[in-house]
Amino acid sequence: MAYRGTDFHGFAENEGVATIGGTLRGALERILREEVELVVAGRTDAGVHAAHQVVSFRTTSERFDPQRLATSLTRLCAPDIVVRSAQEVDDDFDARFSAAARSYEYTVNDGPHPDPLRAGTEWWVGETLDLDAMNAAASGFEGEHDFGSFCRRPKDRPDASLTRRVSRATWQRADPARVVFAIEANAFCHQMVRSLTGFCVEVGRGRRQADEVGEVLAASDRGVAGPVAPPSGLVLVDVTYTARGDSA
Amino acid sequence: MAYRGTDFHGFAENEGVATIGGTLRGALERILREEVELVVAGRTDAGVHAAHQVVSFRTTSERFDPQRLATSLTRLCAPDIVVRSAQEVDDDFDARFSAAARSYEYTVNDGPHPDPLRAGTEWWVGETLDLDAMNAAASGFEGEHDFGSFCRRPKDRPDASLTRRVSRATWQRADPARVVFAIEANAFCHQMVRSLTGFCVEVGRGRRQADEVGEVLAASDRGVAGPVAPPSGLVLVDVTYTARGDSA
Repeated sequence: MAYRGTDFHGFAENEGVATIGGTLRGALERILREEVELVVAGRTDAGVHAAHQVVSFRTTSERFDPQRLATSLTRLCAPDIVVRSAQEVDDDFDARFSAAARSYEYTVNDGPHPDPLRAGTEWWVGETLDLDAMNAAASGFEGEHDFGSFCRRPKDRPDASLTRRVSRATWQRADPARVVFAIEANAFCHQMVRSLTGFCVEVGRGRRQADEVGEVLAASDRGVAGPVAPPSGLVLVDVTYTARGDSA
Repeated sequence: MAYRGTDFHGFAENEGVATIGGTLRGALERILREEVELVVAGRTDAGVHAAHQVVSFRTTSERFDPQRLATSLTRLCAPDIVVRSAQEVDDDFDARFSAAARSYEYTVNDGPHPDPLRAGTEWWVGETLDLDAMNAAASGFEGEHDFGSFCRRPKDRPDASLTRRVSRATWQRADPARVVFAIEANAFCHQMVRSLTGFCVEVGRGRRQADEVGEVLAASDRGVAGPVAPPSGLVLVDVTYTARGDSA
C-alpha cells in the first residue's frame, strides 16, 4: 500500500485520532464483515509517508478475490491511502516478522526557496548542503551498531536492544534544489531515520563533522545526536521478504 | 511567486472563501500598512497551482527593500504560498498586460494506481494513454485559433474574443506512469488548458480521434469539446515579459 501521512497521526491506531491503520482496518472490516487485526511491516510516525508498505491480517472469510479486495479498499480510502495489490500468503507469513529489510528515503530541499507543491513531502533547510560531507557521515552508519543515540527508546521496553544492521546509507543529489537520503536496514528503531537525517544535515551545514559519527554511536545517548528531522520528508519506499517469507 | 492551490478557491478574491490573492494582499497590507490592489499575470482557478506566477501592485511606501518584502511575505504565507522574489519596476509595467506569454503544465498519471503523494498535483486516469495520438491532437492547437470550444465564456462579457495564439503544445512521458502536457500561448481563456487536456486524454484513451481537432475548433461551441480535466494536475510554470515590459 501507499499513503500520504500528512493528515494522519501515524500508522498505529490511537483512540480519537485519524490513523492509517485505523482507516485501513475500518475499510477492511466493512468489506469482510468481520473483525481483523493488522500486522504492519513499518510503523510510520505522524506525517510520514509510504510508497510501499506491507500489511498482513488473518481472515476466516472463505470467498474473496484478493485483487478485488485491493480495489475496494482503495475506493474506500483514496486519495490519501491506496492499496496497490493484495494476495493470499502462507499461514506463517507475518508482514512484520517475516520482513528481511526495510528501505526509507528522506528528501531535503536545500534550494533558495521552499516549494509549496512539495511542502508536505520534503524538508526545506534554507541553505545549500555539502553532499560529500553528508555521505562521509552516512557511511559511518553502515554495518551493525547500537543506534541508541539516534532513537527514541520505547517507554514500555526501556531495555530493548537498539542494535540494527544498516546495509546501505547514501545521499544523492536528485536535482539542483534537492538531496535524497536512501537507507536500508534489517529494521529501524523509533525515529531512527529522522535522527540520522538530522545529524547528516548538521554535517551538511558545516555545524558538525562527519568523523564524529563513531563517538556519537558509541555514546548510545540521544542527547548527543542533535535535532531530529521533521516527518514530512520521510517515505517508506520498500520492504523486502526472503523468498520463503522466513523471519530475518 | 509559487503556490499550492489545493486549499484555495483560486487566485481571484471572493468574499468568504480563502483565495491566493486575498491571502497575499492581506499579508502585503499588513507589512506595508496601506491598501493595495493586485494585478496578476494568470488568474488560476480553484485547485490550480503555480510554480512561477507574477503579481504587480502600486505602493506609496517610499522605504522598503524588495527582497526583504519577499522574505516577509513568505514568512506570513508559507507553506502554501511562497514569494520567491520582488523587484521595483517601471511605472508602465503591469503583471497582466505586459505579459507576452504564459506557460502551463498539466500532469496526468496513466499508471495502474493513483499516487497518494501526488494526488493533489496530478490527474490519475486509470489507463495507459497513447502519447503519439495525444501529440497529434495537441499539434492541432498550435497557431492562432478561436478557442470557443475549449473555454468557458465570460458571463459578464459574452462577446469577448476567444482567439488566442498557441506557440507550443506538446505531450511528453516523464516516467513510466506519467505524461505531461506543456503549453505556451500569448494568453489563455477560462478553463482552456483543462479543456484541451481533457480532449487530449479522450484521444489518448482512444475514445476520440486526433483529426477531430479542426472541426471542434471550427464549431466554437463548448458542447463539442468533451470533459474538462480536474484542476489538480495544472500548474502555471512561467510568464514571459518582453525586455522592456511592453504589452504583447
